[in-house]
Amino acid sequence: MTTLAHHSHHGLFTSGEPVRSWTVSTAKPVRYEVGFTPDVLDPRNPALAGAGVPGDGPAPPRRLLVVETTVDELYGDRLRAYGAARGLDFRIHVLTAHEQLKTMDAVFSVAEAMDRFGIARRSEPVVALGGGVLMDVVGLACSLYRRSTPYVRVPTTLIGLVDAGVGAKTGVNFGPHKNRLGTYHPAAQTLLDPRFLATLDQRHLSNGMAEILKIALIKDRELFGLLEAHGNRLVGENFQGGRSPGSVVRQVLGRAVHGMLEELQGNLWESELERVVDYGHSFSPTLEMRALPELLHGEAVCLDMALTTLIAERRGLVRPVERRRILDVMRGLALPVWHRLCEPGVLGEALADTVRHRDGSQRLPLPVGIGDAVFVDDVTPGELARAAERLRVYHSAVGEARHA
Amino acid sequence: MTTLAHHSHHGLFTSGEPVRSWTVSTAKPVRYEVGFTPDVLDPRNPALAGAGVPGDGPAPPRRLLVVETTVDELYGDRLRAYGAARGLDFRIHVLTAHEQLKTMDAVFSVAEAMDRFGIARRSEPVVALGGGVLMDVVGLACSLYRRSTPYVRVPTTLIGLVDAGVGAKTGVNFGPHKNRLGTYHPAAQTLLDPRFLATLDQRHLSNGMAEILKIALIKDRELFGLLEAHGNRLVGENFQGGRSPGSVVRQVLGRAVHGMLEELQGNLWESELERVVDYGHSFSPTLEMRALPELLHGEAVCLDMALTTLIAERRGLVRPVERRRILDVMRGLALPVWHRLCEPGVLGEALADTVRHRDGSQRLPLPVGIGDAVFVDDVTPGELARAAERLRVYHSAVGEARHA
Ligand SMILES: NC(=O)c1ccc[n+]([C@@H]2O[C@H](COP(=O)([O-])OP(=O)(O)OC[C@H]3O[C@@H](n4cnc5c(N)ncnc54)[C@H](O)[C@@H]3O)[C@@H](O)[C@H]2O)c1
Ligand SMILES: NC(=O)c1ccc[n+]([C@@H]2O[C@H](COP(=O)([O-])OP(=O)(O)OC[C@H]3O[C@@H](n4cnc5c(N)ncnc54)[C@H](O)[C@@H]3O)[C@@H](O)[C@H]2O)c1
Ligand SMILES: [Zn+2]
Ligand SMILES: [Zn+2]
Repeated sequence: MTTLAHHSHHGLFTSGEPVRSWTVSTAKPVRYEVGFTPDVLDPRNPALAGAGVPGDGPAPPRRLLVVETTVDELYGDRLRAYGAARGLDFRIHVLTAHEQLKTMDAVFSVAEAMDRFGIARRSEPVVALGGGVLMDVVGLACSLYRRSTPYVRVPTTLIGLVDAGVGAKTGVNFGPHKNRLGTYHPAAQTLLDPRFLATLDQRHLSNGMAEILKIALIKDRELFGLLEAHGNRLVGENFQGGRSPGSVVRQVLGRAVHGMLEELQGNLWESELERVVDYGHSFSPTLEMRALPELLHGEAVCLDMALTTLIAERRGLVRPVERRRILDVMRGLALPVWHRLCEPGVLGEALADTVRHRDGSQRLPLPVGIGDAVFVDDVTPGELARAAERLRVYHSAVGEARHA
Repeated sequence: MTTLAHHSHHGLFTSGEPVRSWTVSTAKPVRYEVGFTPDVLDPRNPALAGAGVPGDGPAPPRRLLVVETTVDELYGDRLRAYGAARGLDFRIHVLTAHEQLKTMDAVFSVAEAMDRFGIARRSEPVVALGGGVLMDVVGLACSLYRRSTPYVRVPTTLIGLVDAGVGAKTGVNFGPHKNRLGTYHPAAQTLLDPRFLATLDQRHLSNGMAEILKIALIKDRELFGLLEAHGNRLVGENFQGGRSPGSVVRQVLGRAVHGMLEELQGNLWESELERVVDYGHSFSPTLEMRALPELLHGEAVCLDMALTTLIAERRGLVRPVERRRILDVMRGLALPVWHRLCEPGVLGEALADTVRHRDGSQRLPLPVGIGDAVFVDDVTPGELARAAERLRVYHSAVGEARHA
């Protein structure tokens, strides 16, 4: 797999002197686990104690945990009790995390905690408990510290469970730009426990639903049907309804995670820039950052999906009846479909930055019906303006969604 | 190569509920080129114009270059003339780089320059011209920016040519720690042009010789012979002596680069923590940082090599005559073999941090004769103290080296 080719050849230009050159060719193996683990804080559940520990050796007795402030308030006592019951020395670094604190300063705070802890390079995985922001920050700190230290993710929000906890990306915002600095560094293990959602507020549950809807729209028609029939109820019940294997909660979360992983696993480092899971993420990074803190991540994603659904409809890719069903699901989930920033100037700038991100082409995923997608490179300012205007009209007609 | 294993199994503990889990298993291919390219700034030489540009397409017309301040003063005019002659739009970001400025702030400055430039994600490689510090900083910025942007290295110091320009590591200092934050992100291409050394001062040439001596001591007895016979002259001539293929300059630089790449290519991500190229890098990170700005990187490495040579001698791994030859080469290269920080307290702390870096064991490379090495895990404080004391005595007997 690894080769070092060594050449001695004549200079490429004038002088003709022989010169030496080398080609290094290798591959970095990456393997990680994502799994549902109900009751992760139950002391009888060994998952958390051993998660991310390399090899078959015994789990190291000391562990550094980085816990989001609200999560610490809600679950800190149970977490400490878990450590005590399993004879582990838990050192807990509490960190407040939300989109405006998603910065390199937060990364430095985690790196300093790792320093104070005196972490070993491979055998003492850092455990991150919190939402997408906390996991992205801890992931980046662990990626940078000694050029990579293993970590474990325990997502406590819906976005964390179905998206941020599942892939390889870490990152922070930089200047006016969303996730502009980051790495690919998946957690060795992610433990998914939907019971954390019991305490999450309705708005953040809707927010997470946007990423599930993304998967449904681009590749899983059946998942769309589940959201259409049950989405609103799932949010209302904080995903704490049926726990039987075939329950709707199980199906929705499982399909969302599975769909995400199917798309990521062959393209973990985004060598292929046409990614269906970028759906909803073409205009939203700019919208989210411009509106900060008004729009949540999934809300901005939903604005983007509404916009591209209308562009797709106009191109004949989505039928009017499908567009109506899609917008109905968005409204049913209390997600916004229009915002005052959805205007030609901002949308044009957003697309320009995304074109740079996709190396010079739009590579814009558009929905095809419900459950399929296609990439286009030729969306025009006129199309953007028309789609935004139709959504503005629709928005004032149906009344404001909860957070639009 | 890439697989997604998906399991549905019964809960691991109490409840026995069936749960779902996934294993992502993949590998990231990495390929990069390192080669000698004399006269890289000669407009007739196409190397720089096309370096790092992906695919077979034409080179993009715009290019962001990050150039170290001194390098810009010395070579900026020729660089701009090169761009003009080849019809390229060079945007030059000048950055002052030395060990005390090897920080995340320097990384942010490069990231901001990339932002202002509006860099495309894949097709516009950033070009870094400077020493090890500049390349490590630019490498980290490019690694983080949009989670990785390609770059090209043009090292202008001796450490850059034989070491920092050759491997995959990027990094900055953090708090009191050397290279504590970083990534593995090799340049797509490194262009090695020894003519930059014509303007480098003697101290920095000696400094680079320390890394060449490292390779000689652990794996290349013939290279050691070349340093013994010609090292001092090479430094005195700024490596600008013979340009014929078999010249000593060519041999020394070529063997150093080749030896380094041989060690790196199978272990680019340091999954194996026993690395012979860590020789000289067990105590030196702490010495270098504590003495900042007094000791240069290679000087600290040389202190470490002198120390471990004496430990190896006492263990019967190096004969007295070999130890004498090694110390003579160090002195001949005007490199220090002792410093007041080489005392038991500091050396003990340095080793403790290195043990964390090597995940709980010393994994300390010691020389075996000249040109071979072995790893040990049991160096004692007594051995360290004795070796340091003998070097202190030696140091006062032979008189101070240029920078000790
Ligand atoms: N890395 C990835 O692949 C990826 C994927 C999707 C989203 N993201 C990122 O994730 C972020 C959004 O994540 P998020 O929606 O989790 O937001 P978040 O991390 O800001 O968390 C939202 C809030 O929920 C609170 N909270 C967390 N768990 C709770 C619980 N169990 N009960 C009550 N309150 C709780 C937190 O205090 C926080 O203020 C964005 O920055 C987005 O870019 C990353
Ligand atoms: N990434 C790696 O694998 C790796 C390997 C070895 C060393 N390093 C790092 O490299 C750094 C040391 O590098 P360095 O020795 O190049 O030091 P440096 O980058 O600080 O450069 C030394 C000085 O040389 C000047 N300079 C550069 N080129 C010149 C030229 N052609 N003529 C005249 N002056 C010139 C610069 O202004 C600078 O002040 C350390 O931080 C070390 O950790 C990294
Ligand atoms: Zn998202
Ligand atoms: Zn070094």
